[in-house]
Amino acid sequence: MAIEVYWGSGSPYAWRALLALEVKRLHYVSKLIQFSTKEHKTPEFLKLNPRGKVPVLNDNGFVVYESLAIVKYLDDKYPDPPLFGRTPEESARIMMYISECNSYLEPAGLGVVRPVFFNELDSKRDAVLEAANTAREELRLLDERLRNRRWLTGETVTAADIMIYPVVALLERALGKPNVEELELKLAPIKQYFPAIAAWIKNVEALPGYEKTYPPHWRTS
Amino acid sequence: MAIEVYWGSGSPYAWRALLALEVKRLHYVSKLIQFSTKEHKTPEFLKLNPRGKVPVLNDNGFVVYESLAIVKYLDDKYPDPPLFGRTPEESARIMMYISECNSYLEPAGLGVVRPVFFNELDSKRDAVLEAANTAREELRLLDERLRNRRWLTGETVTAADIMIYPVVALLERALGKPNVEELELKLAPIKQYFPAIAAWIKNVEALPGYEKTYPPHWRTS
Repeated sequence: MAIEVYWGSGSPYAWRALLALEVKRLHYVSKLIQFSTKEHKTPEFLKLNPRGKVPVLNDNGFVVYESLAIVKYLDDKYPDPPLFGRTPEESARIMMYISECNSYLEPAGLGVVRPVFFNELDSKRDAVLEAANTAREELRLLDERLRNRRWLTGETVTAADIMIYPVVALLERALGKPNVEELELKLAPIKQYFPAIAAWIKNVEALPGYEKTYPPHWRTS
Repeated sequence: MAIEVYWGSGSPYAWRALLALEVKRLHYVSKLIQFSTKEHKTPEFLKLNPRGKVPVLNDNGFVVYESLAIVKYLDDKYPDPPLFGRTPEESARIMMYISECNSYLEPAGLGVVRPVFFNELDSKRDAVLEAANTAREELRLLDERLRNRRWLTGETVTAADIMIYPVVALLERALGKPNVEELELKLAPIKQYFPAIAAWIKNVEALPGYEKTYPPHWRTS
């Protein structure tokens, strides 16, 4: 049996699991869940993850969900190359950046992304502007941390890059929608406002296997 | 130089750092920050953590913030006793429980706690009831996971217990306030609704050093 990964197109959480698998050069069976037909709410899927969410990893019967737990598991089980650093200090910095993303950038980003995708920019205008302000501050910090660096915490890609990149990519996509422009969020195009982030995005996109992780429906719509 | 930990009374995040230090039986210098005088926003403190938040750990000049990063750092640097399990599978489960708490129980709990402490139960009634529903579901799951177990993931205390306990304790404290009762949240007293959680709380309270981690102002108000 191989590693199975259940994911959905466009889920930043699922994207993290795929990126970790690719960076580790692991062989895995891709189980692409269709959100549109609620495949993640079938009794079969709920047996794997009662929360009905992706990603889920099934490694020969050992089932784990929640993206950070999956990335951590893959790193513990298949240590080469290491994703959480080589020293306690490196590991701490990586976990700190991940925690900060989860606590600040991600909620702010989703505060922009969701109203864009759900056509709520008018009704939630004030909340979107506030979320955009926070997102801008967090991207500025990210940009600063990435200045003169290929990856967030050093010379190699780590779990920090893998966990944070999909959040930035999702936000970038949402900000590219036509109805966003008139809000003047002073945030997009991300690559223009934040040059170090732009370079980092290119580095992630150049990772071997990256293409396989790209959300399929983003290519066509 | 010893380990310095900056914390604030009642911060569940800071509590996690203290619990990890105590479980590891590490010697540390306690730096209790007064929120009331905004000690966490002084230039001196902002040099340690530009976000102006607790906890912050300073281990001989290595500074780390964000509670999960601190607990992980302490575990990597001072491995005995291990807080993240002994196998990739144990470690994955611990990280999964922590992630689930951060994603579900904690935001729902704060959705109840904040309006209680800020006297917004009337104005935010609907949101509080919704948060309480989610918190109830999450506590039910926690209770189920704790049934017939001393600790969340096995025979010894781990980072899962250390990360989740302060969230439950804070919620329990908020639910004990007099104005909460009339909302009939069907959630409190937590120890009555969730017997396995009640037993687990006692186990945490019996940890050596627990008393030193207890929020000082909770004893007096």
